[in-house]
Amino acid sequence: MTDDIGAFVPGPRAHREGRADGLLSGLTFAAKDLFDVAGVPTGGGNLDWATGRPIPTKNAWAVQTLLDAGATLIGKTVTDEVSLGILGENAFFGTPVNVRAPGRVPGGSSSGSAAAVAAGLCDTALGTDTGGSVRVPASFCGLYGIRPTQGRLDLTGMLPQAPTSDTTGWFARDARSFARVSSVLLGEAIPTALPTRLVVAVDAFGFADADAADALQPMVKRLGALVGSSREEIMAPQGLSVWARAQRSLQPVEAYATFKDWLDRGNPRFAFSVAKALVMGSMTPQVDQTWAALMRQEARARMKYLLPAGTILCMPTTPFPAPLTGQPLSVLDPLRDRITCLCAQGGLAGHPQVNIPGATVDGLPIGLSIIGPRGSDATLVAVAQALEKTA
Amino acid sequence: MTDDIGAFVPGPRAHREGRADGLLSGLTFAAKDLFDVAGVPTGGGNLDWATGRPIPTKNAWAVQTLLDAGATLIGKTVTDEVSLGILGENAFFGTPVNVRAPGRVPGGSSSGSAAAVAAGLCDTALGTDTGGSVRVPASFCGLYGIRPTQGRLDLTGMLPQAPTSDTTGWFARDARSFARVSSVLLGEAIPTALPTRLVVAVDAFGFADADAADALQPMVKRLGALVGSSREEIMAPQGLSVWARAQRSLQPVEAYATFKDWLDRGNPRFAFSVAKALVMGSMTPQVDQTWAALMRQEARARMKYLLPAGTILCMPTTPFPAPLTGQPLSVLDPLRDRITCLCAQGGLAGHPQVNIPGATVDGLPIGLSIIGPRGSDATLVAVAQALEKTA
Repeated sequence: MTDDIGAFVPGPRAHREGRADGLLSGLTFAAKDLFDVAGVPTGGGNLDWATGRPIPTKNAWAVQTLLDAGATLIGKTVTDEVSLGILGENAFFGTPVNVRAPGRVPGGSSSGSAAAVAAGLCDTALGTDTGGSVRVPASFCGLYGIRPTQGRLDLTGMLPQAPTSDTTGWFARDARSFARVSSVLLGEAIPTALPTRLVVAVDAFGFADADAADALQPMVKRLGALVGSSREEIMAPQGLSVWARAQRSLQPVEAYATFKDWLDRGNPRFAFSVAKALVMGSMTPQVDQTWAALMRQEARARMKYLLPAGTILCMPTTPFPAPLTGQPLSVLDPLRDRITCLCAQGGLAGHPQVNIPGATVDGLPIGLSIIGPRGSDATLVAVAQALEKTA
Repeated sequence: MTDDIGAFVPGPRAHREGRADGLLSGLTFAAKDLFDVAGVPTGGGNLDWATGRPIPTKNAWAVQTLLDAGATLIGKTVTDEVSLGILGENAFFGTPVNVRAPGRVPGGSSSGSAAAVAAGLCDTALGTDTGGSVRVPASFCGLYGIRPTQGRLDLTGMLPQAPTSDTTGWFARDARSFARVSSVLLGEAIPTALPTRLVVAVDAFGFADADAADALQPMVKRLGALVGSSREEIMAPQGLSVWARAQRSLQPVEAYATFKDWLDRGNPRFAFSVAKALVMGSMTPQVDQTWAALMRQEARARMKYLLPAGTILCMPTTPFPAPLTGQPLSVLDPLRDRITCLCAQGGLAGHPQVNIPGATVDGLPIGLSIIGPRGSDATLVAVAQALEKTA
């Protein structure tokens, strides 16, 4: 299988056969280069991360779980440097091609995983989502993608970024493959019972570009019909921008703490924007961190209140489809900031979130997100599967 | 001529024959990769600087001046990225070997130019000095080196960093070659008359490591005898650290302004420390910049007061000899900060400064600096030449 879209890390492809006769036998997968594969250096999308580190001797938990279930690993994928990025443009390893939106970014940081699945190079792929790194590329590449409940999966062997926000997620092109893989990684069957109440996050729809919000309306209608009842609510009474501000006062601080010793010892090479994010993390005032921790508590309380058992919430995954590649930082930074506003619940509140593909703006994919109570991951997957049948 | 010390930029060596029968015929020189050579991309020590820029069609003024005088260019040399660095460790192009201090940095940012001259690969080499980038490698590599009077030389074709502090400087192994090259680039004969008064900057000697200050004493004695009279003075009544603080509140701000559009458009790749310096420059509060501009005026007044015609001042060029290569930033940052304290007069006051080699600490070179009134560059060169004869 050739890869002319730059989704995989350079060099020989890591290939590991899945166990025969498993639940996922016959499926192929790729793993973001943040997951350990025994015998292969974990590059983290950065030229210098692997230097001086031992080559992993064990597979990451998620990789091993997929192999044990019968899926076959076909390679490791390009990522934004040490998962710091939301657009998928890596200055050292290039920008994986988004076949669903030519000339546009794939989204990041799980850029290569999303691009590879979208291009049909594999059936599913592992990503990580700290601040949107699975949800955003899923939206931009027209894929199913999940950010599971924070703290639910075993992250052993996954390169950390901001531990209180880090999750392992995955992508698929179709709902059935998505459900099969999800069942294995979540360790539970995908239920048949669906939620009975839908909350439409009006502030999130209002925050998205009007054409994006409009493009998602048919899916929202089908979702309401599927679930039975729907009502409108404001998701973030404090403001989505306030939630994003809190997330930006927490995540980069943790990321800096994660990488501090390495920065000191190795003075590693980065794109300017990545280094800048780390410097900013190092300079976040304590007063902002203290406030952000309180706002996180409020966001958690709000999401819990909105999402009792049997309820799901829907919102645009991203405010717009994939931006063009190669734009200046002064254009990209405000776009990234807007994306963060819609992604902040993940890191702040840790509720599971699934991106459902199916809408387009001028031919470019954009996804609808559904969010459920903590632990309702499998139910969200069931909703995605049921919704596909109504299409 | 082979170069196994990593002093030259990778790829084919830029070679330009000097004019026959010039004052410098028979001499070879190298140019820091911040100087334009017609037909050769100017790399600036950074992977991405040259991208999208036209290849120079004219030689930089300093390059052309040396060629016109008969010197032959043998190559372009490695530099700290866009001249941001004082130690000479380039994460992309490596650290040129300091043959005078094995295992130790050459100093920067004119690292390759100093290393090449020290290794005997060429007779002289062009560097730039904004915050110490000629003076420091001259001290660490045991070379003659000059930072001319600020504003004196034509900087056309030299990649700028912080324009109110930028200068073109050069290195040589022996005082005679140094004088020949200096006469050409300064555009005046090296005088025979010497200054008659020496000021010993006691605060600067006190600030250096004790063994470094001790090692320089024989040179100070010889210099006093040469000049005739000497007295001790405090150079910076406000504190050398205060001068350094002012310089650090001016130079990175200007550097950020110089590179801002490129950072935005190209999101270029840097070592973390270089990107961090640029980010810090972008964040310097206006109140600090305003204060620093006032302190610069005070430093200029102080230097003018200390250095009437016929007077020179001496001080250690660096507080210590070259540090070991490969040390963590947490070790290097405080060393760099101390170096800045001794270098700050250059950017703040703009007086010409010549590093004279001749002392060692545990076999490692360390230089004595002489500083004169603005415009007295040729006299400083004359002093260096006269002092060599007393050795």
